[in-house]
Amino acid sequence: MPELRKDMITGGLVIIATERSKRPQDFLPGKEPPKGSGGCVFCYGNETRTPPEVFAVRPGGGPPDSPGWTIRAFPNKFPAVSADGNPGPVSQGDEKVFNAVGLHEVVVDTPDHFETFGKLADNRAELVMEAIASRYRHLTGDPRVKYIQVFKNSGAAAGASLEHSHWQIITVPMVPESAARELNETRKFWLANGECPYCRLISDEIRDGSRIIDTNGDFIVLTPFASRFPYEIWIVPAKHEPCFEKTGTDKIKSLGRIVRSSIRKLERTLTNPPYNMVISSCPPGAECSSYHWHIKILPRITTIAGFELGSGIHINPVSPEAAAELLREADPDLCDNTGMNGVEAND
Amino acid sequence: MPELRKDMITGGLVIIATERSKRPQDFLPGKEPPKGSGGCVFCYGNETRTPPEVFAVRPGGGPPDSPGWTIRAFPNKFPAVSADGNPGPVSQGDEKVFNAVGLHEVVVDTPDHFETFGKLADNRAELVMEAIASRYRHLTGDPRVKYIQVFKNSGAAAGASLEHSHWQIITVPMVPESAARELNETRKFWLANGECPYCRLISDEIRDGSRIIDTNGDFIVLTPFASRFPYEIWIVPAKHEPCFEKTGTDKIKSLGRIVRSSIRKLERTLTNPPYNMVISSCPPGAECSSYHWHIKILPRITTIAGFELGSGIHINPVSPEAAAELLREADPDLCDNTGMNGVEAND
Repeated sequence: MPELRKDMITGGLVIIATERSKRPQDFLPGKEPPKGSGGCVFCYGNETRTPPEVFAVRPGGGPPDSPGWTIRAFPNKFPAVSADGNPGPVSQGDEKVFNAVGLHEVVVDTPDHFETFGKLADNRAELVMEAIASRYRHLTGDPRVKYIQVFKNSGAAAGASLEHSHWQIITVPMVPESAARELNETRKFWLANGECPYCRLISDEIRDGSRIIDTNGDFIVLTPFASRFPYEIWIVPAKHEPCFEKTGTDKIKSLGRIVRSSIRKLERTLTNPPYNMVISSCPPGAECSSYHWHIKILPRITTIAGFELGSGIHINPVSPEAAAELLREADPDLCDNTGMNGVEAND
Repeated sequence: MPELRKDMITGGLVIIATERSKRPQDFLPGKEPPKGSGGCVFCYGNETRTPPEVFAVRPGGGPPDSPGWTIRAFPNKFPAVSADGNPGPVSQGDEKVFNAVGLHEVVVDTPDHFETFGKLADNRAELVMEAIASRYRHLTGDPRVKYIQVFKNSGAAAGASLEHSHWQIITVPMVPESAARELNETRKFWLANGECPYCRLISDEIRDGSRIIDTNGDFIVLTPFASRFPYEIWIVPAKHEPCFEKTGTDKIKSLGRIVRSSIRKLERTLTNPPYNMVISSCPPGAECSSYHWHIKILPRITTIAGFELGSGIHINPVSPEAAAELLREADPDLCDNTGMNGVEAND
């Protein structure tokens, strides 16, 4: 059973998941994931090499765990958390160790081994976002789930151990310290200013204009003023809404389209950089009407090094204003959007 | 002038240092630092290719910026902060942007391009730690300096852009949010418990024993209970002391020896892994009698990915107890300690 341990000084949480890797030799360099679709467990025909699917879009029909899907979700074969049991604490009266109880799912967003999320056709990006929202809503039904992290790792430098495009969702039985702190800060801001800090951010940024990349009415895409990563992008709902999972179908589709085009702008500006994407939302069951959910896209083209880990201050060599200018100009449709198996000559 | 920007929601700081790198092409992969000593600006004979030295140990004597040194410190040629000016705020009444005024120094700890800090002879490790402490004390004399971060990046995956072993020191004109928070937490712990949390940690860990790696009377070496990184190591003064720079000469030498042997244990256990090392100490001028300075060694053999960046929770596949067992057994003197130009056959 993986453990959730709490640092007694910072309150920070750590998952100690020793099932995933054990010996010092496992960390030797040169253990890169295999390139290409040969043997990829996320490609057609290898469905039985993953745990049984929990969700799929299979346009032509067919049984579960068979080919023909365009989106497929299943539990992670090497989960960081355990689906069974209760969080604890492990020892009565000791608030330092809990069982890391939760669900760890994978959502494969294309059957094409080489297709990126940014290259999907709009209607497929919509379906992907609907799938993520559907799994998210499903996971909120488990009373042990106190926090849900949706994320996408793209590229080895961003922590992707498999090349084939996918998303992941991990739930934990406790609200992380940093999320609790941000909820508290937004609450304080609301009480002091009568609006949430993200609503304020949107009106300030639209007035200023220099960090706005895109908008479609439902969502604003911008580079944050204090960007920690070069070309960092936030996608923020234009209207106040604490919870990602309460977004209606039309807006989820709209989100799918604008996340897709934002990723494609990034792919074109930086030639397919490694990146992480995370959804920050109100934790299930928490009181957080002052929060405002949003998506962060974090390009991993610089390294988090000693200065960052020691001080918490990131050094960013690109101003968000310069990044926004380039991202604004990048054409998100300069790609072959025919979808699966499409081949691009000039990319 | 690099900017220090504050995130209005989290209070986190970012340095926007656009002088260091500008165009999207600069981030394309494959721009690895050159391997080997050919052309290395930290090697003998290239002293004029760095800014003029501010400190050196040159056993045989000789003029500044000439060969013959064993330790050499100089300002970083591509500083993340600016040595001139005042922090501001840049606009009157606006607490979001400050000038990133500070000093950014490099301390090269060996003239041998291929020598690691872990392989230094004890007397040379002592001199390195004395050099770091001397520069640290010097930097506290600048009234603009409100925080000092000493760090070492070793290996490309840990953010080292040059292969030749070195340390860095960056000062900033503001206490970072995470440091301020930790100071506050230690103060609260002290008020509630009559001792600092690190003093409590030491007595708890010595009683338990399972995470202790080493001690020399002056310092305790252990793997922290909530280790964020596999094989993470903390080196903590055995007696309460808030400030690194107030450590006396004998203890600084003792520190040099035990940091050296701890790094060597890590190098042997994981075959020279990339790592960061940071000194956490009371910021100059801050009231922090309840703080307890220490060193963190953070091996970078896993990737900080989307889950970590989104939730703040690290997934660690190695329990600190298992890590301590291996590190305890590793022989820190199984290396050629003849110092510079020593060649190891079996490493």
